[in-house]
Amino acid sequence: MKDFTYYAPTQVVFGEHSEEQVADLVKKYGGHKVLVHYGGKSAVKSGLLDKICKLLKAGGLEVVQLGGVVPNPRLTKVHEGIDLCRREGVDFLLAVGGGSAIDSAKAIAYGVPYDGEVWDFYSHKAEASRSLPVGCVLTIPAAGSEMSDSSVITNEDGDIKVGYSNNICRAKFAIMNPRRTFSLPPYQTAAGVTDIMMHTMERYFSHDNDMTFTDAIAEALLRTMKACIFPVLKNPEDYRNRAQIMWGGSIAHNGLTGCGKRDDWATHQLEHELSAMFDVTHGAGLAAVWPSWARYVYKEDVSRFVQFAVNVMDVPNDFSDPEGTALRGIEAVECFYRAIGMPVRIHELLGRDITDEEIGEMARKCSHDGTVTIGSFKVLARADMEAIYKLAR
Amino acid sequence: MKDFTYYAPTQVVFGEHSEEQVADLVKKYGGHKVLVHYGGKSAVKSGLLDKICKLLKAGGLEVVQLGGVVPNPRLTKVHEGIDLCRREGVDFLLAVGGGSAIDSAKAIAYGVPYDGEVWDFYSHKAEASRSLPVGCVLTIPAAGSEMSDSSVITNEDGDIKVGYSNNICRAKFAIMNPRRTFSLPPYQTAAGVTDIMMHTMERYFSHDNDMTFTDAIAEALLRTMKACIFPVLKNPEDYRNRAQIMWGGSIAHNGLTGCGKRDDWATHQLEHELSAMFDVTHGAGLAAVWPSWARYVYKEDVSRFVQFAVNVMDVPNDFSDPEGTALRGIEAVECFYRAIGMPVRIHELLGRDITDEEIGEMARKCSHDGTVTIGSFKVLARADMEAIYKLAR
Repeated sequence: MKDFTYYAPTQVVFGEHSEEQVADLVKKYGGHKVLVHYGGKSAVKSGLLDKICKLLKAGGLEVVQLGGVVPNPRLTKVHEGIDLCRREGVDFLLAVGGGSAIDSAKAIAYGVPYDGEVWDFYSHKAEASRSLPVGCVLTIPAAGSEMSDSSVITNEDGDIKVGYSNNICRAKFAIMNPRRTFSLPPYQTAAGVTDIMMHTMERYFSHDNDMTFTDAIAEALLRTMKACIFPVLKNPEDYRNRAQIMWGGSIAHNGLTGCGKRDDWATHQLEHELSAMFDVTHGAGLAAVWPSWARYVYKEDVSRFVQFAVNVMDVPNDFSDPEGTALRGIEAVECFYRAIGMPVRIHELLGRDITDEEIGEMARKCSHDGTVTIGSFKVLARADMEAIYKLAR
Repeated sequence: MKDFTYYAPTQVVFGEHSEEQVADLVKKYGGHKVLVHYGGKSAVKSGLLDKICKLLKAGGLEVVQLGGVVPNPRLTKVHEGIDLCRREGVDFLLAVGGGSAIDSAKAIAYGVPYDGEVWDFYSHKAEASRSLPVGCVLTIPAAGSEMSDSSVITNEDGDIKVGYSNNICRAKFAIMNPRRTFSLPPYQTAAGVTDIMMHTMERYFSHDNDMTFTDAIAEALLRTMKACIFPVLKNPEDYRNRAQIMWGGSIAHNGLTGCGKRDDWATHQLEHELSAMFDVTHGAGLAAVWPSWARYVYKEDVSRFVQFAVNVMDVPNDFSDPEGTALRGIEAVECFYRAIGMPVRIHELLGRDITDEEIGEMARKCSHDGTVTIGSFKVLARADMEAIYKLAR
């Protein structure tokens, strides 16, 4: 068993009336002048942005706004935010939206007190030692950034999408009102649930299998997400099931489902190349890659895939044929993803075939020209990455 | 579904090598002069106390020691600690031990910067607004105080045992080395697991049953504890299963298993009177009371007891007889407690019969002379308390 640190200090304020506390929370964590950072139209259209700004002002706080964060958030927007915060003397960042808005806010928070170029952190040339405080009002359950230590930014100069993790940028608070997720379209809802499940599965498939409590929590989370997505797709205003998904998204990525285990993250890294090249929805990209990753690696530990098949995917255990049970578990994931409208191959994701050249380029970038491996369940070199992309094509 | 706040900021440092970090952790959270607060002989005999003090001094910290904390920790010891901290200019409290040492340290931490009598907080005459920082080196998995917001102190003047909850005293860090629990005797190990399970069950039995993810986590925790206790009783040096129990104890009481639910705590309150009157082991007292509480209240929501019986206690679901299934779940808990050496009636706990006068006195105190009710699954008045004590006698 691996020694571990678990640290998830974010104050979660969850429920229908959670937004009312926003000004008090910003003040509690030291804010006076707040940059409200958000994405596109939905937060504006729903009235949430307006409500949050009014509540902040009513609480005696100064407010600056910066919208326009896009999915797979861009470094240029981060630069814009850093300049704005410095110019205006902002001392608190409030993200309103999903993972993109929160990740962009975290990057801005690192950048404001840093003399160098903020990309230094994402390119692992420097470690951040300071950050403005960040809070968030979550509207899209998926990325888990509201409780995690990580953020992912895309540098348009070279289509490089990379993550950076540091405890100092964990959100001070996360306001989560499941009602705010009612307007999420089915595709985004399903992609979010896929991302949530994948955050758990990246940790679940590990050779450190002696932390049974962590496994039990992970299985509970995965089964809950599987059960809750269908009623939500049928009735988008199902508060009860929206709430499970929203809370599941936070727990999936706050560290709890990985305690005592080495994690994998190969599927995420393979997907980051897809997102960077084709700007696809992250969760959908994960669904398109995972089954092929699984078939490529399951022989490293068949029993782990059997446990997943039986305990998560409700596959009957054929004790005489562990490999068959393991493979039926992977098929069951494909069935599930299809049923919720997710692609399970790259051509389904892109709406066209991917070329050998594109595969080669993604494997080249993912492996840093063949110098870097990914994954831990099975360590994958450049040739493995190409093979998985081809299986998934 | 209840709106909720989840806030568990304690930095958990878990594993075989966790103790090495103690000085860095104290310094990270602002300590210069540390009161090392501990219980009896075991921390001394095992060499842990000596090791911790050496590590602190090697890290440049000043150390003051105060031992002698007893189970059901006493207010007089808290007063002694407050005086000592003030006299010595202590600015950090490090508890080494189990819930008693941590709870006593939390009380001292409230008391040092407070001008009045620290019992004011426990008697709910005042709210604490300040506290010295507290850290802990956990050696007994049970109370969950290492991540919780609560502490329980016994005032010898009247044998009053009460808890006080406040986020400001949550431990800054918790060092948890499962190896340190190897020397726990079977009875204490089993009582600890009972306490851990009861922290979960006090939240599980609730009328807010729409937070299915919280239920799934709670069931995962309860099943894991049930599975891990037997190998540990057989082989006290079973690191893997000791680790599950240790981590389970923290998760059971850090708030996660209660998200979105109203909790109950009637069994705890009934047991506090037993502990206060007879100074019994808390976990054993809970085991002696719970089955009778359960039989007294299960008709408030039979389906919840069926879910518990089936999902936690592995009772086959007799769909035609929910009440029978529910009752078999309660019997299964009794079997389990007996199998791990716990009492399931008060006479088994005390080794003698309890008198009507003693029952009357406990119910009188628990109900504050009939002015206060307990519980939420079924609200219990003084007469209900007497009835449950009589069922459990």
